Amino acid sequence: MGGGQLARMMAPAAVALGFHLHVLAEAADVSAVDAVANAPVGDYRDLDTLRDFAQPRPDALVNAQDKLVMRAAIERLGLPNPAWAAVASVADIAAFGEDNGWPVVLKMPRGGYDGKGVRVLANAEEAAGAAGWFEAMSPLLVEERVDFSRELSALVARTPSGEAKAWPVVESIQVAGVCDEVIAPAPDLPAAVEADAEAAALRIAETLGVTGVMAAELFETPGRAPGYLINELAMRPHNTGHWTMDGAVTGQFEQHLRAVLDLPLGATDALGDIVVMKNFLGGDNHDLYGAYRQALSAGPTVKVHSYGKSVRPGRKIGHVNVIGSADDDVAAVRARAATVANIIRDGH
Amino acid sequence: MGGGQLARMMAPAAVALGFHLHVLAEAADVSAVDAVANAPVGDYRDLDTLRDFAQPRPDALVNAQDKLVMRAAIERLGLPNPAWAAVASVADIAAFGEDNGWPVVLKMPRGGYDGKGVRVLANAEEAAGAAGWFEAMSPLLVEERVDFSRELSALVARTPSGEAKAWPVVESIQVAGVCDEVIAPAPDLPAAVEADAEAAALRIAETLGVTGVMAAELFETPGRAPGYLINELAMRPHNTGHWTMDGAVTGQFEQHLRAVLDLPLGATDALGDIVVMKNFLGGDNHDLYGAYRQALSAGPTVKVHSYGKSVRPGRKIGHVNVIGSADDDVAAVRARAATVANIIRDGH
Repeated sequence: MGGGQLARMMAPAAVALGFHLHVLAEAADVSAVDAVANAPVGDYRDLDTLRDFAQPRPDALVNAQDKLVMRAAIERLGLPNPAWAAVASVADIAAFGEDNGWPVVLKMPRGGYDGKGVRVLANAEEAAGAAGWFEAMSPLLVEERVDFSRELSALVARTPSGEAKAWPVVESIQVAGVCDEVIAPAPDLPAAVEADAEAAALRIAETLGVTGVMAAELFETPGRAPGYLINELAMRPHNTGHWTMDGAVTGQFEQHLRAVLDLPLGATDALGDIVVMKNFLGGDNHDLYGAYRQALSAGPTVKVHSYGKSVRPGRKIGHVNVIGSADDDVAAVRARAATVANIIRDGH
Repeated sequence: MGGGQLARMMAPAAVALGFHLHVLAEAADVSAVDAVANAPVGDYRDLDTLRDFAQPRPDALVNAQDKLVMRAAIERLGLPNPAWAAVASVADIAAFGEDNGWPVVLKMPRGGYDGKGVRVLANAEEAAGAAGWFEAMSPLLVEERVDFSRELSALVARTPSGEAKAWPVVESIQVAGVCDEVIAPAPDLPAAVEADAEAAALRIAETLGVTGVMAAELFETPGRAPGYLINELAMRPHNTGHWTMDGAVTGQFEQHLRAVLDLPLGATDALGDIVVMKNFLGGDNHDLYGAYRQALSAGPTVKVHSYGKSVRPGRKIGHVNVIGSADDDVAAVRARAATVANIIRDGH
């Protein structure tokens, strides 16, 4: 349901395995329509349309769709949350700020993504300025602003039969609240933190009965046990897993299909010592294909994934993946990815 | 033009690069129809249909479509042919056999593939039995039956601008005249033979003005310089190149698209020390997907490519690829591929 780039990138995996992927598309020109043979247009918010198209989705999704439900679930599991509270008024926010320190982060529990529906409040005065948010939704979620060294992501997949597998924990670099780059595996990550984070993600997937791919977005917190906090959960193939399309034995989209069909999961080993994913967002260049000659020439080892979307400033329109060779350092591989992504974005 | 598995396997590469792949399909249920958004049904042998769909194809194709033209071209280039002749009668075949020794191989110059249109003649009496072939086509091609140690394949791609790249030379194992398995790179191939064969394939592609992927099928002939003979040319993505889909930085289908669009070619390095491709042909099992649970469980590192074709005995309906790890030997990787392919074929 929904014809964005995640549906589009599922199509090649379905082709390989010989499955028929049907997409309920929001419009005839969305990203996935070009990639599948069957993409009727319909509104997935319309129950009759949805019933015609497929069965209702599983309960696990509510844990990702409502951040308050998600925080409570992580707490029940004894896994590392930041300080958090459900708040119904400006006074509640102020009280949380007094108890846990300012600034705090106010979040819409539902509907936000890529930094939307999130606001950092420096003090009680700024909290008062957020009063209007309660008119849209109440309660809201308030969290401490975590002092973290970098962001990580633990990606796992689980089948209804209970088989689950994790990919290596990666570093995720955000720009203006949007995932910009992923380095797999996360460089210099302590083995104990990697193991703990991977186990936590698998435990969440198991306990919540997740079917398919799930990403646990993490803050790395050296000096604060267990070395990370859980920032967000995403119950779907995720931008921090796009590196697996070229960089792992089994990509996240193939794994998601296997999981949904309750088939055995594929191996999750990386195909190189270091893999880098770099997004390209809409920029000044509107002729992406016109930039291909220069871009592909600059990076013969770089794999380009273009989403077939029209260019709008800041819109995610594609990404590139690069597998580093054994004698590459991380900076060199990152530079190779950035060169190609930036040429496509800028047109030169 | 044509909706077989080669068109199908081009679709994921087109999706990644954001190109729109349109397939002129022989029927609504051929392999590629499920993999692309636009697949009108039409007869590519009908000139009006073809003109509506696309521009005429380049001249280079005639070299692959007519084996006599191909032999003459290889001879002009000074590259290693087996002994050969154009023959218009049984007497011509007998004369060739007397000069070059029996048995000889008689080939239809056009229309044959996968061992069809090929006949081995042990002596002059058997040649007389082939008289009927001249009623279908004349002249025919006759060749010495080469005494070879194994079959190799040199796969290259070339753009209209003249950029060309070669993948590593592979070993190709045929069963009953049909490609069954490919080992990349060809184990224990002398470096001089590899270099010479790669250069020959690139020179053929250059001289014939090939656009896209070309496979030179080779006989390895130790003790007969330069160590190989050219058996066949195929001006298209080829079964001996399917390993590149998972086993090389750039797969042959992506490379073919880049070449046809005259874009810079991608790197052709293998992603592991050894990659094995194994076909599965139609067998007793008609429920391929029913066998997936066992097959995928038996080979978590094996990549399955199913062509969405109905099962008929001996029909190519899919293949698997496996990348071996550094501590694998060739036999272990081959066994891993065969296990999965055979489960899908046999249903257990």
